[in-house]
Amino acid sequence: MVKRTTYCGLVNETYLNQEVDLAGWVQKRRSLGNLVFVDLRDREGIVQLVFSQEINAEALALAETLRNEYVISVHGKVVARDERAINERMKTGKIEVEVTDITVLNESKTPPFDITDNVTASEDTKLKYRYLDLRRPEMMTGLRTRAQIVKSVHHYLDDHGFIEIETPDLTKSTPEGARDYLVPSRVYPGSFYALPQSPQLFKELLMASGFDRYYQIARCFRDEDLRGDRQPEFTQIDLETSFLSAEEIQDLTEGVIAQVMHDEKGIGVQLPFPRLTWNDAMARFGSDKPDLRFGMELQDLSEFFKDSAFKVFKSAIENGGQVKAIVAPQAATKYSRKQIEGLQDYIKRFGAKGLAWLKVENGEVAGPISKFVKEQQAELLAQLDAHDGDLLLFVADTQKVVADSLGYLRNYFGKELDLIPDNQFAFTWVVDWPLFEYDEGDQRWVAAHHPFTMPNEEDIHLLDTDPHSAHAQSYDIVLNGYEIGGGSIRIHTREIQEKMLKALDFSKEKAQEQFGFLLDAQDYGFPPLGGLAIGLDRFAMLLAGRDNIRDVIAFPKNSKATEPMTEAPSRVATAQLDELGLNVEDESEK
Amino acid sequence: MVKRTTYCGLVNETYLNQEVDLAGWVQKRRSLGNLVFVDLRDREGIVQLVFSQEINAEALALAETLRNEYVISVHGKVVARDERAINERMKTGKIEVEVTDITVLNESKTPPFDITDNVTASEDTKLKYRYLDLRRPEMMTGLRTRAQIVKSVHHYLDDHGFIEIETPDLTKSTPEGARDYLVPSRVYPGSFYALPQSPQLFKELLMASGFDRYYQIARCFRDEDLRGDRQPEFTQIDLETSFLSAEEIQDLTEGVIAQVMHDEKGIGVQLPFPRLTWNDAMARFGSDKPDLRFGMELQDLSEFFKDSAFKVFKSAIENGGQVKAIVAPQAATKYSRKQIEGLQDYIKRFGAKGLAWLKVENGEVAGPISKFVKEQQAELLAQLDAHDGDLLLFVADTQKVVADSLGYLRNYFGKELDLIPDNQFAFTWVVDWPLFEYDEGDQRWVAAHHPFTMPNEEDIHLLDTDPHSAHAQSYDIVLNGYEIGGGSIRIHTREIQEKMLKALDFSKEKAQEQFGFLLDAQDYGFPPLGGLAIGLDRFAMLLAGRDNIRDVIAFPKNSKATEPMTEAPSRVATAQLDELGLNVEDESEK
Repeated sequence: MVKRTTYCGLVNETYLNQEVDLAGWVQKRRSLGNLVFVDLRDREGIVQLVFSQEINAEALALAETLRNEYVISVHGKVVARDERAINERMKTGKIEVEVTDITVLNESKTPPFDITDNVTASEDTKLKYRYLDLRRPEMMTGLRTRAQIVKSVHHYLDDHGFIEIETPDLTKSTPEGARDYLVPSRVYPGSFYALPQSPQLFKELLMASGFDRYYQIARCFRDEDLRGDRQPEFTQIDLETSFLSAEEIQDLTEGVIAQVMHDEKGIGVQLPFPRLTWNDAMARFGSDKPDLRFGMELQDLSEFFKDSAFKVFKSAIENGGQVKAIVAPQAATKYSRKQIEGLQDYIKRFGAKGLAWLKVENGEVAGPISKFVKEQQAELLAQLDAHDGDLLLFVADTQKVVADSLGYLRNYFGKELDLIPDNQFAFTWVVDWPLFEYDEGDQRWVAAHHPFTMPNEEDIHLLDTDPHSAHAQSYDIVLNGYEIGGGSIRIHTREIQEKMLKALDFSKEKAQEQFGFLLDAQDYGFPPLGGLAIGLDRFAMLLAGRDNIRDVIAFPKNSKATEPMTEAPSRVATAQLDELGLNVEDESEK
Repeated sequence: MVKRTTYCGLVNETYLNQEVDLAGWVQKRRSLGNLVFVDLRDREGIVQLVFSQEINAEALALAETLRNEYVISVHGKVVARDERAINERMKTGKIEVEVTDITVLNESKTPPFDITDNVTASEDTKLKYRYLDLRRPEMMTGLRTRAQIVKSVHHYLDDHGFIEIETPDLTKSTPEGARDYLVPSRVYPGSFYALPQSPQLFKELLMASGFDRYYQIARCFRDEDLRGDRQPEFTQIDLETSFLSAEEIQDLTEGVIAQVMHDEKGIGVQLPFPRLTWNDAMARFGSDKPDLRFGMELQDLSEFFKDSAFKVFKSAIENGGQVKAIVAPQAATKYSRKQIEGLQDYIKRFGAKGLAWLKVENGEVAGPISKFVKEQQAELLAQLDAHDGDLLLFVADTQKVVADSLGYLRNYFGKELDLIPDNQFAFTWVVDWPLFEYDEGDQRWVAAHHPFTMPNEEDIHLLDTDPHSAHAQSYDIVLNGYEIGGGSIRIHTREIQEKMLKALDFSKEKAQEQFGFLLDAQDYGFPPLGGLAIGLDRFAMLLAGRDNIRDVIAFPKNSKATEPMTEAPSRVATAQLDELGLNVEDESEK
């Protein structure tokens, strides 16, 4: 048994002249004359220990043998540091602990990297020794931010009538959507469970049961190719309610988020959050997840250029497209023609055929297309609210290409020009989404949200005539340009649900096979319902100020979906596969 | 949007003469003269609606079309019921709601079974329509009890410095212990993740990282044959701490449980819980999970019978065994010789060769072995504190057979003789377990707790000489004869860990292959640590007063590990298997 009276990082001047018992890890040891100083670390921070001949010669001798990351416990007295030794940057910087007793609880080999925030080890080394990486203060802070979010969510929802209910992890494979992780059944060889991509259908059924308000901190799984902000398993704050409108669900969600921001950041966020329609978000910011921390909105110049001598603009408008611009403030001298051409190349990936630009100098426009606007330049500058030194960027194309291109450039210049204030958290709702979107890769219409999303009341009739033009009772919550969550009112009648599945090219048989239990449930008193899910990993990443969700996951996978520490996934014994009735294909046969 | 001012089940006389908006399910409709009465149900209970010609003829007409399980919303006025119509057993029994407006939100076909507590549908029918089954009040109560436990645990541990951290679900297969559920990797065909049987090693590594106090409501998975209280996936309240003794961890756990019992049951449990050593539990109750709600302890009569003329007793003692008895109070006249012989047959499964018995009548013993004890009968009855009408049951055999047999009979008679008080919750710790136990099936020594359990300090040396006689720093928490959780102090040095694995017949190579990351971590400043896990499903079952954990799981599997509603597990597309590099064995080939 180890005695401990407080954490190292909490020993401050209120403990002066008191005896304390501490335990922790040796961060650093140094000798100074006859003294040995040890920085002792625990989860709350670091405290300085001092050993001397006068206090305890035996303890001093032992202290001299300490190496980094040894685990020790000590007993000692808190004393004031010498004036010269005071460290104002440390919470414990005004005191030190004169150690009278020390016990070495465990030793340590030299770690493969230093336990400090500015560490240069490779990502895979850090993952292999994740237990050491997590000792670093910034990693510990990331996980504690995540825990604080979950804590606030629990407390808020528990207090607002939500019932936490667990849904199964071993469930049915639904080939729609992302790729499932499968789990072979031993009882029925050749059959498989699937790990859930979300608890969507189960939470709807819980509403059918009458639980009224459900939530869960739900683990979800998708076997997709990995990117920086994707992991094979991820966690969502998942909730569902009955009888509420989209606006009421948004209000509830704002309450949750306000609680989190208060508890974790000490910030009182302004409620309600702005509610942008999807159309407005695309028109003004060129994005369905706009970063509202800065302006530089897209401005429509289609009217302005509809009779322009500049053919590119004129014909884009004539063909049903548009001309829009953004104003990059005070960027004119910072960007060369070559750099701007580089951006032009970049936005080709969005389908843009070109990027027109102008610089404003002494009240005059200058640049390749200046001759087309010279005559109306005062009007143009007034309309755009542009000033000397600004760079004007124009894209003329279809609505989608314009939005994607200028939306990208807006974010690019926002960062480049340092227009984004630190420590600001700009939440917004994006509402009234299209019900469907066209998947260019698969060449087919898919559900923009998911197939259980209710169309807008006035669009329900479109399911029979022109389903793909319908908009939905769905909403995303956006923070600083990241989608952190989304939800919708769900379909609660079999009739609309069947039409929706038909619009997604489900045959009646396939609909029943895949979603029969949902359709059946809708026959037995299914209530109006809606809900939302917030991606915990990304939300925690943003609040912790990190730029990779791996930093807020205790034991993440790397970009190959493997875990270098345990070496999962791995080969298994043939006997295990035999029980499951499975053979691994011989790779040489391929 | 549906307007609602409160829940149906909460409308009581404090609402008298107020207008309310309610929504819910039609439990029952009946007509009485010109009136229609509807029982409207939501998660909080049932309220009576009344429709009449005078209030609203249109609403009355609609009410006449309502059928069970229709979802409706209503607006109306709360009025007092007629004296004669008051129902004291209902929370809302003194009032009814005169409905002025009604909207039918959804219809319902006739459900396959009634939504009431005394339902006779088959288990599989209830699972297929689980969303209907969960509407039944007793099922809803079970899940709400579970949610309340989790809520109390969150609040208590959050307030006591515990940090909630998620550990991975896609992890490494460890063939030791129970059978793993495997998850094929697509990136590395032929390799597999395993779903965790517990977060044991991850939580130890979090202690190595310095988090100091961890907890998680952790989903775990075991592919074992199912029994009444087993499910393929289950949930544990999982916690781990650094630098604490077994007693300190037990104290913390008692705090958690006291909080739960207070919040869910309104009961102030007496702390600390009794702490029985494993030896004492086996000696006194013949069980490592004793039910302390009643007495009837096992009493050792080896000394009494060591010179007995009854050969069976005498030789059992001479061979190193023992003779023990239990006293079944006032059971003498209730059990015939034949019934007792039936019990004798039953305990043969524990290896017992016989069951001796005596009845006490008028201060005299009677029965088959009475002639051997007649002379000392007064002494015997005094020692056993037995009285007229009692039934005395004796087993003479090895310590284990005696414990198993009389432990079983104690529980049997406890229930049969109605000695167990209702609504009592008797918690106890069972501590100081053997480190190993012999698995008769596999014919080998296995870890009694798990291979990471620390031996008692004074038994560490036995790892080199006689490991299987060592006892461990482990502890189980027992409630009413059920093990609801267990934990231990863990091994924190590579040296002891390697000896432990060696005693379990791991080669050095196999130890490194399976547990190398743990052994490596123990080289880098691994702190002393310990923790515990409580089985949430079983704990919730006991507090909800149910006798099957399925009743406190929203969507459980049946006894074949299938889910009749979604029909998981199921066949999957060949393309899915191809991506994973797997073939399903042709069953005809077998």
